[in-house]
Amino acid sequence: MKRVVPSEIQRFCKDCLEVVGASPPHAASLAAVLAQADQMGYFSHGLNRLAIYVQDVQLKLADGAAVPSIIKETTATAWVDGKNALGPVVGNFCMDVAIKKAKECGIGWIVAKGSNQYGIGSWYSTQALKHNMLGMVFSNASPLVPPTRSEKNAMGTNPLSVAAPAMDGDSFVLDMATSTTAVGVIEVKKTTQKKIPMAWAQIPDEKPKDTIAKLAWDIKDQMPLGGEEINSGYKGYGLALMVETFCGILAGGDFGPNIREWTDAKRPANLAQCFVVINPTHFAPGFEQRMSEMNRILRNLEPLHPDKPVLVPGDPERKYMEKVNKEGGVLYTEDQLTVAAQLAAKLKVAPLKVL
Amino acid sequence: MKRVVPSEIQRFCKDCLEVVGASPPHAASLAAVLAQADQMGYFSHGLNRLAIYVQDVQLKLADGAAVPSIIKETTATAWVDGKNALGPVVGNFCMDVAIKKAKECGIGWIVAKGSNQYGIGSWYSTQALKHNMLGMVFSNASPLVPPTRSEKNAMGTNPLSVAAPAMDGDSFVLDMATSTTAVGVIEVKKTTQKKIPMAWAQIPDEKPKDTIAKLAWDIKDQMPLGGEEINSGYKGYGLALMVETFCGILAGGDFGPNIREWTDAKRPANLAQCFVVINPTHFAPGFEQRMSEMNRILRNLEPLHPDKPVLVPGDPERKYMEKVNKEGGVLYTEDQLTVAAQLAAKLKVAPLKVL
Repeated sequence: MKRVVPSEIQRFCKDCLEVVGASPPHAASLAAVLAQADQMGYFSHGLNRLAIYVQDVQLKLADGAAVPSIIKETTATAWVDGKNALGPVVGNFCMDVAIKKAKECGIGWIVAKGSNQYGIGSWYSTQALKHNMLGMVFSNASPLVPPTRSEKNAMGTNPLSVAAPAMDGDSFVLDMATSTTAVGVIEVKKTTQKKIPMAWAQIPDEKPKDTIAKLAWDIKDQMPLGGEEINSGYKGYGLALMVETFCGILAGGDFGPNIREWTDAKRPANLAQCFVVINPTHFAPGFEQRMSEMNRILRNLEPLHPDKPVLVPGDPERKYMEKVNKEGGVLYTEDQLTVAAQLAAKLKVAPLKVL
Repeated sequence: MKRVVPSEIQRFCKDCLEVVGASPPHAASLAAVLAQADQMGYFSHGLNRLAIYVQDVQLKLADGAAVPSIIKETTATAWVDGKNALGPVVGNFCMDVAIKKAKECGIGWIVAKGSNQYGIGSWYSTQALKHNMLGMVFSNASPLVPPTRSEKNAMGTNPLSVAAPAMDGDSFVLDMATSTTAVGVIEVKKTTQKKIPMAWAQIPDEKPKDTIAKLAWDIKDQMPLGGEEINSGYKGYGLALMVETFCGILAGGDFGPNIREWTDAKRPANLAQCFVVINPTHFAPGFEQRMSEMNRILRNLEPLHPDKPVLVPGDPERKYMEKVNKEGGVLYTEDQLTVAAQLAAKLKVAPLKVL
């Protein structure tokens, strides 16, 4: 395993995207989100995804230079056409609009169609924190989750992220797929042939239960949060549908099983996303103090196991970033570095410089 | 088991609340929500809860005549003081404000402090449907759920509800606790000594696992949605904290473990709630058509078991209401009717008239 400094991860991703046709600022936008994911320990959403984005730009399935625009707006809302730009370009555009509206009238609720995968949701929700506001984002995704009782998948892992500011730079940051696990988690485990808990995937009765991560990946039926119906998996399915309602249904993008398959290289994704910013100064004074008090209470709860303290959502990622900062770089496996080297050779881009 | 017509459930609840001091219109507001819950098959949230509300009014823990007011507002937002009025009085007030604002500028985001238990969330979220808009509501609640890794509870079952209109009166209506089950479900099962799945409650290792519903009720540690950490229970915990952030933290009401215990008869609840209405006409045209198409796709998915069709959230309640309508009334058990008769005798109110 070897380390790479974050700025070098960004440089590499940006070069790869530019060489296949993305405009420099757009390539930089996407590169920043990918590098951030790896710095937070979300390896499923960082460098690991670069080849997919490169393919989308190369095949002109995504437009590496398009600029999103507002179709319709009020003081508090906007409907945006992402124009098939890179996901982070659409996301950053929408968050800027949402922040501006929330400053003016307390809330901004923006939905975009014609978007692409935007990486980690917390990249967007946490933009509100810099303005002492709350952020909330939703994205639909390619079908991978069977609705409760369904034999086949019809919903995406439809993630949501919420960020709220506490005092002295502390915060609450939730970033989760509405399925039991993100597809990337199974993706990462499949290569190692690791077993996964039964609540993660819907495995047909006739299939062998061993090497289950590989099987779950092949079948592409991930359980909604909660798992089986008896354990309230229908709530995870309901949350996935809630996310879809705020995304594809509200924005008029593709939705549900009509979204292209995850690896489909034939048509644009036409994903839809929803971006919300809430200005706490228009509600009860002292928001950050209360958020800090809530965080303090939670972190000080007596743990079931002394070596596993109670965490506030966002703490694991915070801890991982501190570690990366302290160690001076992101630690990648040989596998990850080999894939990156192959991509560099293929695209004739300067290879990733390891420490 | 005997039937009671819905108007008679309302009459009985209203009489009980009035006789202990609630104003007639406020008693009627609460009675309507309770009767609706039983008509939908949510027996945990209907007549079953009446005695608790009666006690709150009788002991002046809730104000049966108070009128909520707006403390602060913008075109799109409002911060409301519920003035310790009955939950449905606060809820209906806030939804009216949210609907008015959403008509004007596309969205209304209202938070209230000084509220009380408001019954089923879908009572409020579905009010938006009558105006062809989307509704979303959140409420905090008394602590019953241990955050992931915590020995003790510190969060409520913090429910959320989302309603979105489809064509010809169809809709998508999600109404769920962010715990694996609502407390009422365990409450109903405890009297019958029924076992419950392990993912529902956090039972300490040293406790017997039999008559587990009773035990779960006594311990009051319900699992967040997802259950154990390995099955992503931290996501359910994160959702509970999201709800609390939009309620107690944003509105400045009580929050987390500072909320009174569920059966505490010593101080007002000071719950907080959040009410959102979104006007789809400010986004992509054809919202209801797409919602109907999504529902159609979901209901027509091939089911795993032929006798268990795939449902859209809201379908089970819809089906139950149709049954009640067809049969001419809500079917109550002898137990439920005995409790109601005792309450009638105690309050000197005309007893519930059964068919």
